[in-house]
Amino acid sequence: MKLEKCLTEENINQNLLNIQYAVRGPILQRALQIERELVKGVPKRFERVVRANCGDCHALGQKPITFIRQVLALVSFPELISSRLDIPQDVKDRAKELLDDCTKGSVGSYSPSNGLNLVRSRVAQYITNRDGVPSNPDDIYLGSGASDVIKSVLTLFVEDVGGKPPAVMVPIPQYPLFSGTLSELGVRQVDYYLDEEHDWALQISELERSWREASIESNVRALVVINPGNPTGQVLTRDNIEQIIKFAYERNLFILADEVYQENIVSKPFHSFKKVMFEMGAPYSRMELASFLTASKGWAAECGLRSGYVELLHLQPSVQKTFNTMRSVMQCPSVLGQCILDCVMKPPSPGKPSHNQFINEIRDIHQVLKERTATAYKTFNSIPGYFCNPIDGSMFAYPRIEIPVEAQLEAKKLNMSPDEFYCLRLLEETGVCVIPGTGFGQLPGSFHFRTTILHPKDEFQYMMDSIRRFHLNFMQLYP
Amino acid sequence: MKLEKCLTEENINQNLLNIQYAVRGPILQRALQIERELVKGVPKRFERVVRANCGDCHALGQKPITFIRQVLALVSFPELISSRLDIPQDVKDRAKELLDDCTKGSVGSYSPSNGLNLVRSRVAQYITNRDGVPSNPDDIYLGSGASDVIKSVLTLFVEDVGGKPPAVMVPIPQYPLFSGTLSELGVRQVDYYLDEEHDWALQISELERSWREASIESNVRALVVINPGNPTGQVLTRDNIEQIIKFAYERNLFILADEVYQENIVSKPFHSFKKVMFEMGAPYSRMELASFLTASKGWAAECGLRSGYVELLHLQPSVQKTFNTMRSVMQCPSVLGQCILDCVMKPPSPGKPSHNQFINEIRDIHQVLKERTATAYKTFNSIPGYFCNPIDGSMFAYPRIEIPVEAQLEAKKLNMSPDEFYCLRLLEETGVCVIPGTGFGQLPGSFHFRTTILHPKDEFQYMMDSIRRFHLNFMQLYP
Ligand SMILES: Cc1ncc(COP(=O)(O)O)c(C=O)c1O
Ligand SMILES: Cc1ncc(COP(=O)(O)O)c(C=O)c1O
Repeated sequence: MKLEKCLTEENINQNLLNIQYAVRGPILQRALQIERELVKGVPKRFERVVRANCGDCHALGQKPITFIRQVLALVSFPELISSRLDIPQDVKDRAKELLDDCTKGSVGSYSPSNGLNLVRSRVAQYITNRDGVPSNPDDIYLGSGASDVIKSVLTLFVEDVGGKPPAVMVPIPQYPLFSGTLSELGVRQVDYYLDEEHDWALQISELERSWREASIESNVRALVVINPGNPTGQVLTRDNIEQIIKFAYERNLFILADEVYQENIVSKPFHSFKKVMFEMGAPYSRMELASFLTASKGWAAECGLRSGYVELLHLQPSVQKTFNTMRSVMQCPSVLGQCILDCVMKPPSPGKPSHNQFINEIRDIHQVLKERTATAYKTFNSIPGYFCNPIDGSMFAYPRIEIPVEAQLEAKKLNMSPDEFYCLRLLEETGVCVIPGTGFGQLPGSFHFRTTILHPKDEFQYMMDSIRRFHLNFMQLYP
Repeated sequence: MKLEKCLTEENINQNLLNIQYAVRGPILQRALQIERELVKGVPKRFERVVRANCGDCHALGQKPITFIRQVLALVSFPELISSRLDIPQDVKDRAKELLDDCTKGSVGSYSPSNGLNLVRSRVAQYITNRDGVPSNPDDIYLGSGASDVIKSVLTLFVEDVGGKPPAVMVPIPQYPLFSGTLSELGVRQVDYYLDEEHDWALQISELERSWREASIESNVRALVVINPGNPTGQVLTRDNIEQIIKFAYERNLFILADEVYQENIVSKPFHSFKKVMFEMGAPYSRMELASFLTASKGWAAECGLRSGYVELLHLQPSVQKTFNTMRSVMQCPSVLGQCILDCVMKPPSPGKPSHNQFINEIRDIHQVLKERTATAYKTFNSIPGYFCNPIDGSMFAYPRIEIPVEAQLEAKKLNMSPDEFYCLRLLEETGVCVIPGTGFGQLPGSFHFRTTILHPKDEFQYMMDSIRRFHLNFMQLYP
């Protein structure tokens, strides 16, 4: 008796077949396999895999912020608040405050679907302090990470208008959440290239070109900006942001400002799109905007807790109402994630018992970022055939690498792109797991990889040395 | 200077305009407003709002399971494991085991996108024990609540095949996650009616009718079954499940078995679709199936933690690979949510220090369910004009109510359905917030509301009395 499958590659949602998410793609799968081989005692030229595929600081050994974790423990098990345990008073106060905002004092109750009132007002206060511009808690939507709310916002644009399919402009290189989600939604991705020759600048002429070409066949509706950049690590200047806002205004584009690395900056000042828009005054200050932040990045780096937010500005009320309804179907984001975000938005203040320890902890974290960005920049530029722009922020390096023609041919035989081939060889020979540039996008004919840089010092040095040795060897193999 | 909005009701994703989610809809909004009015001292005929809109046990005062919350506290703040605190050894062991499976021992690291290996194997073990049929951890996907994975599975069906639009069969009454998600995805919802005259039975003849009519214009691809039922509370018999499986097999329908209330059953035995399929043998035992469970329900009732799973059986490998990729774009579900699910899948075993307390806690919870289902059934059937089927499980009652023609006319004037009008009047006059049947679906011309029934005894009695008094009064107003 024949049993057809109900779901086949031919009849499932065809958009899904186009999704690519290299950060957790074949290279990582091979790395995990190698880890299992190492455990089984399969001999290798290295003793362990160094994962540098993902911007996940705790996975690289960064320690959680004590204040956050103490608050988490207390809201999870409120008996601890009155226990003999030596817990600072400001932790207890915070836990009580959060529990007071949970229905019947349990983090196990569903919260409002946009998030606890307390946490949303804390987010609004954080934004107000940052920008000097008021923020309304009703414009804030908490999500299961920024990913979740980014996807919801992109969902709004799925609609043919005037007979043309919708399209969204995305920087290249980009973080593949955007390409992956647009694929799933069936929305066209319009690439604009960041200018690697000029510190990954966002050139308005390139926005123009990209928009013009795409507009012939599609309805370009939104513009994604990632600032600070992932994987590129640049921080936009205020001037540049102004130009981008004007560009978007003139073409009636909705700006999605992915600003999740705003607290991971080495030295330059961070300007939020919201602040710049308001400083520019009317009509710019009345533009729609979606701006994203997450507790997965910054000093908290609580990726596993899944907590982020979007601030949605100046939406037409009926559109905002529709957004509310869409979000409510999934009930709410994790209440413990929301509690963490609360701590990120309002960390211990000066004079409070947890303040000193908090300051020391974030100072160390910032120090590591500063040191690693400098080392990565220096090391990569010292390897023949490598080029790396200065890294202003985020937690990545994205060096450009020359791949000899012979190696490119070899890659082709294996049905791989040259950078995939390069990264796979690097992994097999050194255990270092970085993600090929094809996963983020790059100018045709150029090759890159992305590596996270927040490993402990020794491991980082080991990784840098391994990459250098591998590359020199590679260049000899394919002269 | 004119500023058009980029997003308007006319040009946003039109599917989104069709989403309805009554559980958090206008009635709840009004209830929240009344709560604020009460705080401000606005005089009312009642002192507080009784929320009965949502299956959220902690919000009704149910206490969390101590074991779960202690584990949560320890994995959040691992220093507690070695503190002077009096924490049972099995809690410490569990916390350590979970932390060992988190990258670098932090719940703040992203997990694999399908979930921690440990937790997925615990889920597989739970299913194996339940069904006596092996379960493979690679078929398990953890999600941010069952909602999240239900949406992902439904996403697979978005595709016109053979020129016909896709459609999914959904019981009426249903839980509006299904209607809402299908609306968002633009997949047709095909209603089949549960038989209220026969204890909400799922009649195969009705499945036939519904399928036949829908198949003329659409491609019916999947069948949703909610067992135990929400809002209807019935539990399907083994025979009935066999018939449903045969029906689905003959029409090549993919079964989505929403079995989230499987631990909320008063007396009848629960049969999982998986177990029945396997017991039926080939070809049924090779059918595709998606089966859902969540930590939001059962004795844990940790809604706010957002943790659930789907087991996906017998998918074509390329389809499963695509599902993996789609899921990976959102990174992973909350790791703390995963930790909770672990506790639900493997609660303290006999002989372990936490076992006694655990057993007492769940016994009390079960006792409340038993008592409230009986009281709700009896009370509703004692009100003239009310009819309520026996409640086998879940945590709801869904009584049918007669609404006098005069009241129906009054509703029409106000542009409301009669049951909406009824529920709104009930709210305004008594503070009791229940959800009208239109939110779940009902036979045209019949009227219902859904109420949760797990309130504390006094509050529950107060609610029952208020509803009775309101109804008797209502019938006098509209004779
Ligand atoms: C640029 C960017 N945006 C958004 C995210 C989403 O992160 P999360 O969903 O963990 O908040 C990431 C994560 O790496 C990112 O790099
Ligand atoms: C029938 C049914 N399925 C699924 C869910 C989803 O719950 P969660 O997303 O909290 O796991 C619910 C919640 O009420 C439900 O009633």
